[in-house]
Amino acid sequence: MQDLLNYLEINKNRFLNELKEFIAIPSISTNPENKEDVQKCANWASDHLKNIGMTDVRIFQTEGHPIVYAEWSGAKGKPTVLIYGHYDVQPVDPVELWESPPFEATIRGDNIYARGTADDKGQVFIHFKAIETYLKNYGSLPVNIKMILEGEEEVGSVNLPKFLKENKELLKADLIVVSDSSMFAKGVPSICYGLRGLCYMQIDLVGPKSDLHSGSFGGSVHNPIQALAEIIASLHDKNGKITIPGFYDDVLPLTKKEREAFKKLPWSDKKYAKELGVRELYGEKGYTTLERLWARPTLECNGIWGGFTGEGAKTVLPSKASAKISMRLVPHQKSAKIAKLFERHIKKIAPKTVQVTVRNLHGGEPAITPIDSPGVQAAVAALEKGFNKKPLYQREGGSIPIVVEFKKILGLDTVLLGFGLPDENAHAPNEFLNLDNFYGGMRTVVHLFNELPNYLKK
Amino acid sequence: MQDLLNYLEINKNRFLNELKEFIAIPSISTNPENKEDVQKCANWASDHLKNIGMTDVRIFQTEGHPIVYAEWSGAKGKPTVLIYGHYDVQPVDPVELWESPPFEATIRGDNIYARGTADDKGQVFIHFKAIETYLKNYGSLPVNIKMILEGEEEVGSVNLPKFLKENKELLKADLIVVSDSSMFAKGVPSICYGLRGLCYMQIDLVGPKSDLHSGSFGGSVHNPIQALAEIIASLHDKNGKITIPGFYDDVLPLTKKEREAFKKLPWSDKKYAKELGVRELYGEKGYTTLERLWARPTLECNGIWGGFTGEGAKTVLPSKASAKISMRLVPHQKSAKIAKLFERHIKKIAPKTVQVTVRNLHGGEPAITPIDSPGVQAAVAALEKGFNKKPLYQREGGSIPIVVEFKKILGLDTVLLGFGLPDENAHAPNEFLNLDNFYGGMRTVVHLFNELPNYLKK
Repeated sequence: MQDLLNYLEINKNRFLNELKEFIAIPSISTNPENKEDVQKCANWASDHLKNIGMTDVRIFQTEGHPIVYAEWSGAKGKPTVLIYGHYDVQPVDPVELWESPPFEATIRGDNIYARGTADDKGQVFIHFKAIETYLKNYGSLPVNIKMILEGEEEVGSVNLPKFLKENKELLKADLIVVSDSSMFAKGVPSICYGLRGLCYMQIDLVGPKSDLHSGSFGGSVHNPIQALAEIIASLHDKNGKITIPGFYDDVLPLTKKEREAFKKLPWSDKKYAKELGVRELYGEKGYTTLERLWARPTLECNGIWGGFTGEGAKTVLPSKASAKISMRLVPHQKSAKIAKLFERHIKKIAPKTVQVTVRNLHGGEPAITPIDSPGVQAAVAALEKGFNKKPLYQREGGSIPIVVEFKKILGLDTVLLGFGLPDENAHAPNEFLNLDNFYGGMRTVVHLFNELPNYLKK
Repeated sequence: MQDLLNYLEINKNRFLNELKEFIAIPSISTNPENKEDVQKCANWASDHLKNIGMTDVRIFQTEGHPIVYAEWSGAKGKPTVLIYGHYDVQPVDPVELWESPPFEATIRGDNIYARGTADDKGQVFIHFKAIETYLKNYGSLPVNIKMILEGEEEVGSVNLPKFLKENKELLKADLIVVSDSSMFAKGVPSICYGLRGLCYMQIDLVGPKSDLHSGSFGGSVHNPIQALAEIIASLHDKNGKITIPGFYDDVLPLTKKEREAFKKLPWSDKKYAKELGVRELYGEKGYTTLERLWARPTLECNGIWGGFTGEGAKTVLPSKASAKISMRLVPHQKSAKIAKLFERHIKKIAPKTVQVTVRNLHGGEPAITPIDSPGVQAAVAALEKGFNKKPLYQREGGSIPIVVEFKKILGLDTVLLGFGLPDENAHAPNEFLNLDNFYGGMRTVVHLFNELPNYLKK
């Protein structure tokens, strides 16, 4: 193992220069004018994977941008890890806010700045170098490796599910590892083991059949904005709990171990409130902020509209009012079931004075890879060795749809081993990757490959 | 009196032809290209007033369109009535929906169709002919008459208050009569004796200082749309009463006589609900629909907005949410006081989790000319004789700002003696005036001039 760590240390500068080449290709998947760059970037990754010693390297064309596949399967009888990442990047506008050119990786302080450094070329590259380290030093790896790199992550992974379905056999593995997220904070290595799901609804209310004059008609009919406000206000009780019957039925309660793990994370409600610009936080009573953000379901109004919204004073009693309301779900809530409970409840509480329509616009399932599962435990052991620090456990409040697809289509759990930082400007100007995390990430992945066979028994 | 009524009968056709001339001038005050037509129409009215025998007839130029003034003051020792009307009209778009040309008065069935027939040339013309009837037959009137006809009613009477202030002495009178509204229904002569006022507010809430991702942040802060919904929902109690402390303090209660008078009006809640397209009406418990519309204050949401309002599902936790909320006021509520009560209450109930701004955008006072006041009683006596039917009492839910200006600047009560009908298309294609109301209106005004000295003692 020391040989491997020495190899990483000796080749630091070369690695940086190679990453700069990878970064320099403007593989912006959403811009039609960058279509050739995206293909060029897939070719670069494919060539690089061949150079570092991956054996079966292929480019799969899709209806959109290509998927790069690579495999090394020389560890007979050992587990197989499927590494997922993406080589496409976000647009760079507003380009004038970048302190150095977005596709010229530039080191300032402890960070390397450029589009794609954190999201996700830099993190993909960490895996490239961990693999290279084994293959150049020992000619072999302690685990079998499969890798898929997609070129459409930033445009919604539109062609990935089809690829997964058509290549189930090829993608057979024991665990998925994704490095496309962030650590909890700088100097706080952490492992993310849970994601929330989503159930996104729209409510449309119609009161009188046309807009009315609020003077001539005010006092005779139920204003649909008022009716909508009354419905929305009733969806939380005074303890911040959601009032939809059955809503919490399938919620997996937080374990004592999880609650203790979250308490170990460096956190200040006061600092957080100040950063968001609010005087007081709000949420479900009986839970800490991190528990509410990660492990408790929520209901948010994403938008509301109705009546006159211009400048000045128009005395309209509107015919219609609408709201977009979404719920973040936690294991083991199911998006379709929650949509039904929501619709039933809204229709039940809507007054007879208005007509109500409820629509389900979008949904996604929550995901969890329990903290005592073998994959998570292997990652924790690797992180501790890679960063010389006991890693902490976290979840994420948002959703990562591909994690759900991996579970659904391939039947595999995902370990989210992120080396970014929360303030890395992933979709903004001056995106960066911290260099300590870049090198610590390589050490971690080298250790991960070494640890995995101890945890994942074949 | 019979001579006068005979005169009206004999000259019916001539009157119609004269009205057609008045109508034919397209005095659309809002269109700059009709500016000369508006002046031409003022000239026509001025000439006509001279022809029928008014003595002091003048045109006052304003910064906008001119005001026509006319006077006959030969009834020494008798009261003076100030008649207000307007000779400007609404635009005619969409012109293709008119069944006959908008400026060619055309009789179909019992109605005369053209722009301005009801609003307000036809009703102004009723007064012209009542005056003519006296002066041509007797050479005198039983009351002194002053008349102001403005050319900017359809653009907000912008220059009228200045004219009133500058001509207080000239406009000295005992009562104002305005014929620019509708009877309760066809065949139901009625007198409108009260109008509601207005207090129009805007609430702006700010939660987090910028829009947040509802996945990453949902569960930690108070969503400003939710907070706004909670505020709005709390503004009415379960009986439909407004919960702002002090809101009802200055409300003049309905008298037994008024409530009985409203009950005599032909009205069906069921028919009204069907016309508006609602299954059930809504409002303050303990009052009939007409009472709620006319004599009870209300609070309506005129508009609401916040967050994502486009197509689809954007998972935003918005920074801001706003609402426009207006209150219709009844005598003796004061708009400025209600604005203060509203602001104080909203600031008190707004949670600490959001920042709230409350602004007063617009206001106007309610007005009432009590049903047992001399002017109203004279009008009732005249209406009964003019239409051979006991007239009924009504109020209006909306506001007529000039009525408030008349009271404020000239210190005079206004009697609203409308001869239109509720479905007269005043601001739409195919505006009409019912011919029974046209002739009944003339008889009524002839009787009104005769009755006024009995009621208004000098």
